[in-house]
Amino acid sequence: MPKLVYDFAEGGKDLNDLLGGKGANLAEMVSLGLPVPPGFTITTEACRAFLAARREPPGLRDAVGTHLAALEEKAGRMLGEPGDPLLVSVRSGAKFSMPGMMDTVLNIGLNDATLAGLAARTADARFAWDSYRRLIQMFGKTVLGVAGERFEEALDKAKLHNGAAADVDLGVKELKVLVEEFKGIVLTATGRPFPQDPRTQLDMAIRAVFDSWNGERARLYRRREHIPEELGTAVNVMAMVFGNLGADSGTGVAFTRDPGTGHAGVYGDYLRNAQGEDVVSGTRNTVPLQELEHIDKCSYDELLQNMRKLENHYRDLCDIEFTIERGKLWMLQTRVGKRTAEAAFRIAVQLADEGLIDIDEAVARVGGDQLGRLAFPRFAAGSDTPPIAIGIAASPGAAVGRAVFDSKTAVERARAGDRVVLVRRETNPDDLGGMIAAAGIVTSRGGKTSHAAVVARGMGTTCVCGVESLDVDTERRRFTAPGGVVVTEGDVISVDGSNGAVYLGELPVVQSPVVRYFEGELDPRGPEADELVAAVHRILSRADAVRRLQVRANADTPQDAARARRFGAQGIGLCRTEHMFLGERRELVERLILAGADAERDEALDALLPLQRADFAAILAEMDGLPVTVRLLDPPLHEFLPDLTDLSVRVALAGARGEPVEHDRRLLAAVRRLHEQNPMLGLRGVRLGLVVPGLFTMQVRAFAEAAAERARAGGDPRGQIMIPLVGAARELEIVRADAERVLADVAARTGIALDMPVGTMIELPRAALTAGRIAEVAQFFSFGTNDLTQTTWGFSRDDVEGEFFTVYLDKGVFGVSPFEALDRDGVGRLIEIAAAEGRARRPDLELGVCGEHAGDPASVRYFHRVGLDYVSCSPFRVPIARLEAGRAAVRDAAEHAVESDTR
Amino acid sequence: MPKLVYDFAEGGKDLNDLLGGKGANLAEMVSLGLPVPPGFTITTEACRAFLAARREPPGLRDAVGTHLAALEEKAGRMLGEPGDPLLVSVRSGAKFSMPGMMDTVLNIGLNDATLAGLAARTADARFAWDSYRRLIQMFGKTVLGVAGERFEEALDKAKLHNGAAADVDLGVKELKVLVEEFKGIVLTATGRPFPQDPRTQLDMAIRAVFDSWNGERARLYRRREHIPEELGTAVNVMAMVFGNLGADSGTGVAFTRDPGTGHAGVYGDYLRNAQGEDVVSGTRNTVPLQELEHIDKCSYDELLQNMRKLENHYRDLCDIEFTIERGKLWMLQTRVGKRTAEAAFRIAVQLADEGLIDIDEAVARVGGDQLGRLAFPRFAAGSDTPPIAIGIAASPGAAVGRAVFDSKTAVERARAGDRVVLVRRETNPDDLGGMIAAAGIVTSRGGKTSHAAVVARGMGTTCVCGVESLDVDTERRRFTAPGGVVVTEGDVISVDGSNGAVYLGELPVVQSPVVRYFEGELDPRGPEADELVAAVHRILSRADAVRRLQVRANADTPQDAARARRFGAQGIGLCRTEHMFLGERRELVERLILAGADAERDEALDALLPLQRADFAAILAEMDGLPVTVRLLDPPLHEFLPDLTDLSVRVALAGARGEPVEHDRRLLAAVRRLHEQNPMLGLRGVRLGLVVPGLFTMQVRAFAEAAAERARAGGDPRGQIMIPLVGAARELEIVRADAERVLADVAARTGIALDMPVGTMIELPRAALTAGRIAEVAQFFSFGTNDLTQTTWGFSRDDVEGEFFTVYLDKGVFGVSPFEALDRDGVGRLIEIAAAEGRARRPDLELGVCGEHAGDPASVRYFHRVGLDYVSCSPFRVPIARLEAGRAAVRDAAEHAVESDTR
Repeated sequence: MPKLVYDFAEGGKDLNDLLGGKGANLAEMVSLGLPVPPGFTITTEACRAFLAARREPPGLRDAVGTHLAALEEKAGRMLGEPGDPLLVSVRSGAKFSMPGMMDTVLNIGLNDATLAGLAARTADARFAWDSYRRLIQMFGKTVLGVAGERFEEALDKAKLHNGAAADVDLGVKELKVLVEEFKGIVLTATGRPFPQDPRTQLDMAIRAVFDSWNGERARLYRRREHIPEELGTAVNVMAMVFGNLGADSGTGVAFTRDPGTGHAGVYGDYLRNAQGEDVVSGTRNTVPLQELEHIDKCSYDELLQNMRKLENHYRDLCDIEFTIERGKLWMLQTRVGKRTAEAAFRIAVQLADEGLIDIDEAVARVGGDQLGRLAFPRFAAGSDTPPIAIGIAASPGAAVGRAVFDSKTAVERARAGDRVVLVRRETNPDDLGGMIAAAGIVTSRGGKTSHAAVVARGMGTTCVCGVESLDVDTERRRFTAPGGVVVTEGDVISVDGSNGAVYLGELPVVQSPVVRYFEGELDPRGPEADELVAAVHRILSRADAVRRLQVRANADTPQDAARARRFGAQGIGLCRTEHMFLGERRELVERLILAGADAERDEALDALLPLQRADFAAILAEMDGLPVTVRLLDPPLHEFLPDLTDLSVRVALAGARGEPVEHDRRLLAAVRRLHEQNPMLGLRGVRLGLVVPGLFTMQVRAFAEAAAERARAGGDPRGQIMIPLVGAARELEIVRADAERVLADVAARTGIALDMPVGTMIELPRAALTAGRIAEVAQFFSFGTNDLTQTTWGFSRDDVEGEFFTVYLDKGVFGVSPFEALDRDGVGRLIEIAAAEGRARRPDLELGVCGEHAGDPASVRYFHRVGLDYVSCSPFRVPIARLEAGRAAVRDAAEHAVESDTR
Repeated sequence: MPKLVYDFAEGGKDLNDLLGGKGANLAEMVSLGLPVPPGFTITTEACRAFLAARREPPGLRDAVGTHLAALEEKAGRMLGEPGDPLLVSVRSGAKFSMPGMMDTVLNIGLNDATLAGLAARTADARFAWDSYRRLIQMFGKTVLGVAGERFEEALDKAKLHNGAAADVDLGVKELKVLVEEFKGIVLTATGRPFPQDPRTQLDMAIRAVFDSWNGERARLYRRREHIPEELGTAVNVMAMVFGNLGADSGTGVAFTRDPGTGHAGVYGDYLRNAQGEDVVSGTRNTVPLQELEHIDKCSYDELLQNMRKLENHYRDLCDIEFTIERGKLWMLQTRVGKRTAEAAFRIAVQLADEGLIDIDEAVARVGGDQLGRLAFPRFAAGSDTPPIAIGIAASPGAAVGRAVFDSKTAVERARAGDRVVLVRRETNPDDLGGMIAAAGIVTSRGGKTSHAAVVARGMGTTCVCGVESLDVDTERRRFTAPGGVVVTEGDVISVDGSNGAVYLGELPVVQSPVVRYFEGELDPRGPEADELVAAVHRILSRADAVRRLQVRANADTPQDAARARRFGAQGIGLCRTEHMFLGERRELVERLILAGADAERDEALDALLPLQRADFAAILAEMDGLPVTVRLLDPPLHEFLPDLTDLSVRVALAGARGEPVEHDRRLLAAVRRLHEQNPMLGLRGVRLGLVVPGLFTMQVRAFAEAAAERARAGGDPRGQIMIPLVGAARELEIVRADAERVLADVAARTGIALDMPVGTMIELPRAALTAGRIAEVAQFFSFGTNDLTQTTWGFSRDDVEGEFFTVYLDKGVFGVSPFEALDRDGVGRLIEIAAAEGRARRPDLELGVCGEHAGDPASVRYFHRVGLDYVSCSPFRVPIARLEAGRAAVRDAAEHAVESDTR
């Protein structure tokens, strides 16, 4: 039987699969000699067994008993001992941090009998009764499932009745009454009295924490954060220490560096005479950590020493929870701290400069998503609009949107297309849906470590919190700012997450300096560049130096091509020709489609040829010396014609009014003829090329002539011709033979040798499954992961906004849309088959990917791993892909290093 | 270097890959000691090398020279020897017979010099000149590419000018003039004189035959017959023998049994004083073979002896061409003969009865396609409509359609949806397109071995040929029958391919006796059954005894279920529930879709429940004791609503007229909301089940209650629940959990234990690619090959009638639509992956297929080979699938036998 329970002294940070992050890090602190209250961790394996069988796995009860005895031994107190009772906390702790998403129960061990012992030990009867009140409330809500409002209402009534402004104003007498009332609530709601047996309390709390893994909030969070469903949570049982035993007690959270900006120096919040929940919930305002020096210098010095020890040990920013119980410091939790994108880059480079990590490790420590966030626009400097209020800059960025006051409205308005800013007094986990939907978040209470701040930073959403000068009236859906400014639901506000300012109306937004650096407008070593730009530059430079994967861009215009090149693209991996058939040329395309005779069609093609040639020439000029892969026309022809329903209505109405409709009738006939039930599965891509004589050869000729012109002018054009939607080698054979005839003809006419490889998109399952055969004909493959996802799953990209995608995310069919992050099990398997079998047939086959996934950080790492040659993404995503390609290479190197170490 | 040329004495029938059918069989006849003119065969390998390199492979010229010398030696004559010249024929001969599709050149070796020698040897100057005329004409047309009409016009003019009714009426003098004229045509058209050097003639003819492999007719034929493009043709060079040297000469074709009916006894046509082409082309009318006994008993007896020898040797019906040159019989060709479906069954059983083959071999010798053809309807007996004409019953069946007079019109009208009968004087390979398009074919000239007859039998198209009483006027698009009956284009006629009758108007059609046997209306051993029904019964019984693959049916109604069971189905593999939502229930479905609130939706579902239960109860009753797999609702909901465009126009017009449109407006809003760009890739299948609360559970409840009712009534219901369009295991987990809750509930309420496995369709590439994971949840897999083909290829089934499918068939992207015959490389590979990985995870996983392919003979053999448990097809295809499953098992056994032999 596996070991189901570990004492804190038995574990370590490398066991976080089994002990969860919190448990593993508690064990690590114990091994570093830091003052951690005694305790033990029940493994994630025990949780998984419990959730699968709906009962405790055999042996768990006994193992908990054994470890509880050890805990009692160390604490010097016994659970349930009336004279001097031990109290314990029961907390969840999964492999990946899920702050506030699962359950916690404190004060386990209190009952009618031990209450007196606690009062005597602490010499604080009020504290003991309040703790008992809290236990019944928390246990009732989270373990027994009693509606939380029932306790809150009773508490509010008690306060009102006793003229008490806050909880602390209730005395022993009132608390005794309240405890009885709470017990009554439990009995009424569950049919059973509140359990008095401490071991029963403990076992029920453990079960409840196990179950909270599958709570609704936890599941929604996991889906959003891509945390696997099957991991389960560990459970940490720890002797309680109390920060609320008076002025010489308190509790706080701290970071070893500023997680918002990355600036060096300790950073955190402290709250006197309070428990940890009071800090995190933001219901009471904290003081900066530095003030602790004046309150309790001894504990402060010890804390700073512990923090240094932790940062040096973890070689990273650490996030710490601590409690001081009557002058004694206890370390309750640590972990590698979350941080903003800006802080991530700064800290990574700082740590490298300090010699704690090397530069490759710095590359590994930042992510493409973070780099993307740094490119978010900011408010223009020098605007003279005064803010209506200033709060704490909790998560950077510039958000403009309509003020909304509850999560539901935020979701609804966002779904309807509005940008919204969610304004709340404070947020709690129930607000998660609205926080996801919002462009920005504003709260009037809570510090940088409040729920709103932590979650917003995690999501990269702009957030200003603790704007105490705002009076938020959720009921009336409005807030009032100093000077009587009233903002009601729907009014536009602007929120600056970098300085904490809230503005009325829409503020102009400017590019971030990081984008200006990408654009080459800002020299990273020059005087104008700040520390952030310098950090980004150092990390990107290193990523470029180590990456194996090339990064190209999807660019259809000379402007996009030029930007892509500035952003570091090593060519164009996908130049779509669709837009070249729109605008003023739509009329020619209409003629092409409506052509009754070959001559009419040829005339339209002849007119398009010089226009296409000019398109290609301009792009080749921008990308001189780098590959330019042109995809021949892909979308269904009817996309160039009016909508069938609209046109039918127009013709019918005009007919009814007796108006002339000759042209429209002819158009309608063509639209009807070309109408397809499922255009995504219809006449498009290579099928168009085979059905419309002269279309593809016109495009090839235009491209070849443009390349010949450029070569004659002394340039270095490197064109590649890409055929879309191939499903069978034969399709490509026909088109390639035609293309090569045209290339030979252009070469003969111009006297310029043209080396333009002909390759194919791999975007149908059949292409991947027969890639060996197709590689006999194709000189390169480019995976079109959008279409490949579409057919592999049978999902239409046009319809993903539809009802069932939301339901699928909700029900956990996938954690993230397969159109966003590559589905490795399905689509990825096809890519791996095609890559292996294509290369087996043609060892020098070039392999790339040009779907949206090419710019998705996780997917880029995957494409590196399966051995593709390049990714091609939108110009703005090029730096992100460069970084991720570098990180993938660094990770490879690290894995190889470990392998050689262990050999 | 491979051997490129084989003497007839060197080959044998097992070499037909290399020598083609004709060459291999000629060699076989030589080895049997039959009188074959000397000759040699150039291999298909030489042809492939020639076609790839566009030049003769090295060594071919020398090898031809060597074998030519041997031929001259055997023949006792030399090519080009003026005194007694050898003439040779050059004929194509591919692995699979392609009658008339490639080129032949006769009389090679004649020139201005050898002409006299031929005249002297045959003592027939007219014959020699006519042969020379024929050579220049045939060589000019097929080798030099001169338009055939130019020779024909000159010939016609010569006949007119000389008052000659037929070719034979032209004398030496006229032929001399004609030869000069033909030479002039060649010179004008090609710029070069007709080649006089016999070896040059031979080499050019060989090249032309090679090239004819890629001729348009040949390619069309290959696509239709699924003959691979890359095989190439062999070329047979043979000493000429002449059937046109007078009354003691002649030529004929013969079958060892009747290929039309399967009746025993020799059968064929003979034409005195003629060459082989005259028989096949049908331009002169033949006499029955039996008359040869009176013309030349000696040759007749020898021929019959040769035919017996061949049939015993080949153990099958043989098809023979022979020529008698001045009393000497020469065997020019043999092969296993094509036959009608009816003949195939009769002959297979006859041969088994005669001990030439065993019954398993008989099973292997008939095909599902043939069995399908036997089930074609026939004209009702006892109609008193008199035929307007009677011809030769060349290919059985009953065809009714509009008369058309050329191939192009046949194709156009058929494409427009008309059923047509193609009426021609005679057909030639250029008519192939029209013959494919026609429901029936009528010719006024030619016998059972004419082009029309042979091709029609091959395709299973009804054909009556040689209706000499018809005067077919192609120009005026009409024919005149005896008694002055005039039928013009577009008039409906009925054609009986079993007795040769042609009727005016539409005759009523009845079931074939084979279908009556399937239906159990005809006892195969009873007095009413004919030899054919008995043969079908014996073969099907054996197939049932040996097959491993189960055959189930796709049946949605009790009527279909009952028929399927009569036809031998072993259960229902697919019961669609779509139609159960139509008809009178459409209104309920509309309410379901338009439901604004849960209550409205539940009300609609509650109303549907008892109706569904009754549907299922009736089907379970018919299939008592056999599995019934019900697929939960699959198609997009909007299929139950009106068309968006139609409704939009209706609402717009009504609005313009000021009519009330409230209901339609509401409907339109729903239709718009549900409208999808690509419904095939949209909200359907399991997605519906997850999005519309209560829909799937209503269906499961109805099915479970029906099963429980039936079990309580003493029946043996074996329901299986099938979930469509699953792409991820999680989808199935959710639906299966819901279904099992309902099953448990019904079991609890009724007290009947319900064992209803829950499985899934595998119809998306992702399902196949993640089958291992899905098999953890699915209790069975059923491959939905229609949808799987759709997504694997990215083709919409709704749109395959569109333009590009025709182009794809024409361009050889596929030989047959992948919706008809399973695409093994793409779709098949997914099936193999899913079968292997599904079974690896769940060894007892039941695997079936329920797409259209389950009834396609070639696909059934494939499904057997990849180890599926059953195929499920439409009730009418059940006997076909039974037969093919048996043939697959027989083939396996034969292969295993060979394997043990060779071990």
